[in-house]
Formats: sequence, structure tokens, C-alpha cells
Amino acid sequence: MRNILIIGAGRSASSLIHYLLNKSEAEKLHLTIGDLSLELAQKKTLNHPNATALQFDITNDTQRQKEIQKADIVISMLPAHMHINVAQDCITYKKHLVTASYISEDMQKLDAEAKANNLIFMNEIGLDPGIDHMSAMKIIDEIRAKGGKMLLFESFCGGLVAPESDTNLWNYKFTWAPRNVVLAGQGRAAKFIQEGKYKYIPYTKLFRRTEFLAIEGYGKFEGYANRDSLKYRSVYGLDDVLTLYRGTIRRVGFSKAWNMFVQLGMTDDTYIMENSENMSFREFINSFLPYHPTDSVEIKTRLALNIEQDDIMWEKLVELDIFNPNKIVGLKEATPAQILERILAEAWALEPDDKDMIVMYHKFGYEWNGSEHQIDSKMVCIGTDQTYTAMAKTVGLPVAMAAIHILNGTIKTPGVQLPIKKEVYEPILKELESYGVTFHETELPYIGYNPDKLTVSV
Amino acid sequence: MRNILIIGAGRSASSLIHYLLNKSEAEKLHLTIGDLSLELAQKKTLNHPNATALQFDITNDTQRQKEIQKADIVISMLPAHMHINVAQDCITYKKHLVTASYISEDMQKLDAEAKANNLIFMNEIGLDPGIDHMSAMKIIDEIRAKGGKMLLFESFCGGLVAPESDTNLWNYKFTWAPRNVVLAGQGRAAKFIQEGKYKYIPYTKLFRRTEFLAIEGYGKFEGYANRDSLKYRSVYGLDDVLTLYRGTIRRVGFSKAWNMFVQLGMTDDTYIMENSENMSFREFINSFLPYHPTDSVEIKTRLALNIEQDDIMWEKLVELDIFNPNKIVGLKEATPAQILERILAEAWALEPDDKDMIVMYHKFGYEWNGSEHQIDSKMVCIGTDQTYTAMAKTVGLPVAMAAIHILNGTIKTPGVQLPIKKEVYEPILKELESYGVTFHETELPYIGYNPDKLTVSV
Repeated sequence: MRNILIIGAGRSASSLIHYLLNKSEAEKLHLTIGDLSLELAQKKTLNHPNATALQFDITNDTQRQKEIQKADIVISMLPAHMHINVAQDCITYKKHLVTASYISEDMQKLDAEAKANNLIFMNEIGLDPGIDHMSAMKIIDEIRAKGGKMLLFESFCGGLVAPESDTNLWNYKFTWAPRNVVLAGQGRAAKFIQEGKYKYIPYTKLFRRTEFLAIEGYGKFEGYANRDSLKYRSVYGLDDVLTLYRGTIRRVGFSKAWNMFVQLGMTDDTYIMENSENMSFREFINSFLPYHPTDSVEIKTRLALNIEQDDIMWEKLVELDIFNPNKIVGLKEATPAQILERILAEAWALEPDDKDMIVMYHKFGYEWNGSEHQIDSKMVCIGTDQTYTAMAKTVGLPVAMAAIHILNGTIKTPGVQLPIKKEVYEPILKELESYGVTFHETELPYIGYNPDKLTVSV
Repeated sequence: MRNILIIGAGRSASSLIHYLLNKSEAEKLHLTIGDLSLELAQKKTLNHPNATALQFDITNDTQRQKEIQKADIVISMLPAHMHINVAQDCITYKKHLVTASYISEDMQKLDAEAKANNLIFMNEIGLDPGIDHMSAMKIIDEIRAKGGKMLLFESFCGGLVAPESDTNLWNYKFTWAPRNVVLAGQGRAAKFIQEGKYKYIPYTKLFRRTEFLAIEGYGKFEGYANRDSLKYRSVYGLDDVLTLYRGTIRRVGFSKAWNMFVQLGMTDDTYIMENSENMSFREFINSFLPYHPTDSVEIKTRLALNIEQDDIMWEKLVELDIFNPNKIVGLKEATPAQILERILAEAWALEPDDKDMIVMYHKFGYEWNGSEHQIDSKMVCIGTDQTYTAMAKTVGLPVAMAAIHILNGTIKTPGVQLPIKKEVYEPILKELESYGVTFHETELPYIGYNPDKLTVSV
């Protein structure tokens, strides 16, 4: 038997563990599932004979080192900042490691040691980062293999609610960490390149400069720019590309409505509001509006946001019950962002039968054989239920598959890695298709943003 | 002779030193003027026999302690974070200290030691903070002395250009640190109380929620809210006041125009722009606008900011020469805010004969004798020239006057102080009048923001 130590048995581990248990006979696997909550770990074993649950404390050096020594490979599903002790132990005891997290600076520093010990530390092999890397590099490599030159790469991803569960005016429910949704886009301006020009979008305009996307059978979507679209420019070998843009997918109209919160100041997480615990939802929104002795909160909101009488923006606000004077926030010393999250968590909660949906959309523009071409690659994945969600599948399955490939020696490049090599993406993308994670590619004429190749000085 | 050590001979020290030298015979004063630049220190002595210039390095412990030992009182005009070593030496060698800076936490910690040694550490005795405290507390104390109860306190201050030098469409020139102007209002939302309700204005709305002010003979002004209007609530004894607001004064129309920069993202100081050194002014503004192969930067700007053909906002932008493709930023690794400052520094530079202007405006609402009243108190001070500016006078004169009062024992309360006591504000406000710093008080009916005392639930 090969021993896999899985650290962290939260939501994103469901499909991962389910997959490995299904393979455990054929692949001769034994899983040790460790979590701070023994109950959670036990639940995730599904009472399978090839799984052992463990109450596991990552800060307990003795326990951590003991369990890592017993493993052939370690999968850490902890938050990114908690991997490093595990990774160092993996060096010490010469074990491979798989995570779905961004490569931290501390992780990157272990590259030479991992290589020296012929160890594979595979990171960023979940959904985003993960499937985005693999599905993008597959096509970029294909374009290059036939002699094409990349001109444009745009990549969008979003976690949404499935069409059959899409029952509110925002076309959105919380299928993942609500706090990240509330804070999305804050901090530095979004930066990208378009037709060779660096562009910057400040937070205050981020949700007003969206792009439209359409996927056959699923309708229209929109994307707003991620913080740093240039992060993988060199990693993907796209240093000379004219257009490079990464974005987050929402249903059309979400961003325009979300911008109301941004403009009012409700997404601010930098200060604590007075008397937040006893504040009503209505008092919360009124805090951001000018004082008036008789004008209602409603009319002040309409004026502040320029919402006309028949504007659907208004219905979206009303749907949140945000003008309710009787609903109390009930959070001590809370920031505006925490209070907004509290209000939205109620309005955007998943019903027991609701399903989630992951949408990914890549655009590749390239020059080949004297002319310009474009490939659009699209993937939609719907969750099975609230355990085996689309998010859990798309995050967990690539991690699980990578672990088996590493054990079997079919993924073999040592060092601190991310999944951009053919030996990784080829088998995993192929296998993902049988789990409903399928990319549909269409070829279309390349237009870009400067079709007439004008070089006017604007 | 009484020895006064003045540390820092920059712009704000001109009027301070001039005043003390004029008093040096009558008051038997000798000034030691220390600055990192000996030349600057020498220039500030005005070749007066009662002044000595010194090349002074605040980080040189030996020199600092030697000079402080020789002094009877120390005036530190350094930036606030540089006072603390001086203050500690003042404890050690039992010397009084005067600064125009906000009381830092480190300074506040010296309160008990200062009191134990009967030392006066007078801070916040410049313009703002300084004259604002004194002129406000004078009237608040008067209202209380006759049995009145404070209902409202609003206080505005601004450094502007004098009417005779007001020659651009923005009605603004840089009379003080340009960087502070560019960064004004960033960070936490502005917080204040209006009719008992806490209100918060996010940065993105700060310059759109201004208040109007008018001063006889000087026309109209506007004020935008300061970060924390509640900072002095308890210090002034205003914990029960219904309305408490502090703001910054500009000429009408400035804030609406400034908001264009905020909305475009040009005031952001958190990231470095690509290729800032060789970027033209035109490329700078274009970086914040959507890409288009043929639409001009001008038309994109009009669309992004909704500037109609005959809108004065447009002329304000054009006046800055911000669309010039030939003017180069010339700053390495600069943030948007640094580049904007560079552009404005050129457009808003003072001409050699230009004069500056300080405007302060307080409103006091109170209940007395069964009815409600309001006092407005206004001060305008025009600079003499570019050495004896209104800013230098209003910052430096109160510091100088306080130093003499401390030496003479007429200001006598020991400890870490700010000028809110009658023994401080009464003589200094009176003497400031002979230097053109005069408050004009008018009584008017109190209106507040809820004149009909409605208690509707909005």
C-alpha cells in the first residue's frame, strides 16, 4: 500500500478524498485524513477500509513529523500560509507534496532542496490556480508547436450558482468564502496590457469596466479585471504578447449592482463602525448617506446612486432587505465589509438543493502562417450536490490525480512546480473530462482590439 | 539672557524667528537656530546679534544633548515623528518644549514625567492644530461660562492662494506640501456626527459631499470632511454634542474637479506605474482609460468622466496641460500620486509675487436661556510675501508667543499639553490680532440640520 497523508478535510477535500478512495484498491492506496476536527475527518473517510481519520494539529511538531514520515506523499489542503512547516518536513523526510495554493515566497525557496532530493512539490493544481494553468498551457503549447506566435491571452474564471438554482435578481449566491467576494478587487488598481498598452483600473471603476462573454447553452456572462493580470506573463512565456488580461466571471448585471456597495463605501474593511452590534440594516445603509431630518433612507439612496424609478438596481437592493429597520446586524466592532457580508449571507445563502457552477473562459489570439487566428476555450462544471460541489470537484480532483501520477512516476520533474508542463496537464485534463470538466474549443477569426492595425497617436 | 534652542529652520520657522528676534532685546532672548543646513540656519538669523546659527544633526546624541542643556526652552519645528529624542532630553535636562505637531503616543507617555519635573511640553500650537484649538475653545468656554449647552461644532481650515494671486481655474496653488494635497482624504472613510447620527463618507464620495461657506469680502468657499472629526470630541468636552464636523476649505468647484483625479485612479499611491520615467503626461492619463485604436484620449476622458462639451471641468483639465504628448513625467518608479503631483506642481506653482491665504471658519450651535443660538467665527490671513507667508505666520507666531509665555511663567500648567486652556489661548489670540490674525464673530439664529426637531423614523 502507498500511504497518502491528507491534511485538512474541509469543503474542498470532499471530491479529492472520494476520488482517491474509489481508486484505493486499484492503486493500492491508504489514506490518512487529518483535520483539527476528528469528526470532520471521520466523516470524510466514508467508512472506507482504506482510510483512517486523525485528529491532527498542524502546530504539533511531533505529530506532524510522525505522520509525514509514515506517508509516501502528502496533500495539504490547508490555507496557503500554513503549508510551510509541512513542506519543510517533506524535505527532511523526503516526501512529495501536493497543494492547490499559490506558491508562496517561502515555498519557492525550497525549490533547490526539493530538486536535490528528487522531490516533487506540486502547487497551484486546483481550479484557479490549477485548471486555468493546465487548460491555458495546453493550447499555448499547441499553438507554439505548429509555429504560431501568441498575440493575446485572456482568461476568466468564476464560481457561480447553477442555472437551475439561479433564483435571485443578482444571479449570485455564496458558493465559496463570502468574505473574499466582499473584498474582491480592493487594494491596488487592476493592471493589464491591451494592444501593448499598460492599463490600470482603480477599485472605484473596477465594476464598471467589465467585458462580456457568452457560452452556448449557458447565456451571457461578464468579467471584471483581476488585480494582476501580468502575474504569469513570464511563466507562460508571454512576455511579448500584446494583450494579457485575467478576470472574474459573474452573470451580466452583477458588477453594475455590486458597484452600488463600492460607491456607498460598504465594502470598506479598514475601520470599525460605531455601535455595529445594535445597528439595524437600515441604519447601516443610512450611515453612508447624508443626514436629512425627513427624507427617507430610500429616497436618499436613490439620489446618491442615481437610481431611477424603474431601474432594476432598485429591486436588487430591496431584495436584500437592506432597508429593514428591524433586522439587527448583531456583530460587535464590525467593519462595513463584515456587516455587508452579514446582510448578503442571509440573502445569498444556498438552499439545501442548490447546486453551484464553475465557469472558465480563455481566449487565445495568435499569428500563424501569415494570418491571425483565435481560439476560445470554455468550460462549465455543475456541482452534484452541496458536498460534491463544482468547486470541490474542480479544486480537488486535479490535486488527487496529480498525487497518483507522482506516486506512479508519470509526473516526474522535481522541484517546486506549478502545472504548466505537458507531463502534468495532458493526463490530468484528459481524465478530468470523465468527471464533467470538459473544455470546448472553438476557432474564430482574430479581431483583437485594433483590427485595422492603426498606429495613430491618440 | 534666556536661551531658546530652535530646531529646524524651514519654511514654517520664518515668522517664528522674526518675531522672537524682534522681542529679543525687550525679553532678553538669545536664539540658537539649528538646522541640518547651516546655510539655512544662518539665513534665518537675519544677522541679528541675538541669534547664533548651528549646523545641527538631530541624530547626533552628543550635540543634541549639549545644545539642549544650554537652552532654557526648546522649540522643535521638526516633523512630528522626530520630536521624541528631543522630548526625552528635555525631561533629562529639565527644559520646557514647544512644538506645532500633533501629540504622538510617545509624546503623551512623557506626561507624568513632565508634570513631576514641572515642565511644560506645549504641542499642537501652530495653525491646525493650534489656532483652531484656541479660537474654538475661547468661544466654547464663553458659551459654557454663561450657562449655554453646546449643540453643534463645525470647524474648517484651509491653506489657499490670496485673491490677488488667484489666477487659475482651480482657484488653487500649492502653498504647502503638495504631496499632502494629492493624498488628502485617502485611507479610512471620513467619520463625523450630524444630529446625533454617525456618518461615514468613503474616499470615492469625499469630494462630492462638500459644504458651502461664505466669508464677507472673500466670497464663497467649500469644505470637505476630514478623516476623523471626532478626534477632539472629549478633549473639547463635546461628548454630548449633536453635530461635530471638521473639514478642509477650498474655493468652490475645486472638489468637484479634484474628484476627476480620484475617479480616474490618479491619486493612488500604492503601486508603481510601468515606465513612469519616459511616460508623457498624455500617456499617464491614457493609462487609466479604456483602450481604443482611434478614439482620442480627450474623447475617452470626456466619456469616462461624463464631461459635456461646455463643462468648465474640461477647461480645468486642459489648463493642467495633462493631454500634452511631449511633456515627459521624468520620475523613476513613480506611483500615480507622485506623477499627478509632478503635473500639478508645474500648473499650480506660485509666481514670485504670489501671496497665500489661510482661512478658518468655526460654527458653534448652543442652547441658552431656553432658546437656540449660533456663533460663526471666521478668520482670513493673507501672507506678506513668500517668506512671511500666511502659513508661516499662523504656524510660527503662536509657537513663538507660547515660548515667551512659558519663559515668563504666564503659561504655567505642566505636562504634555495642547492649547485649550484660557491661560494659553487668551493672551495668544489677543496678541495674534496685532499680526493680522483676527477672528470675526457673528451671532445668528441656530438652524442646525433638523430645525423642526422631527423624530421621524427615516
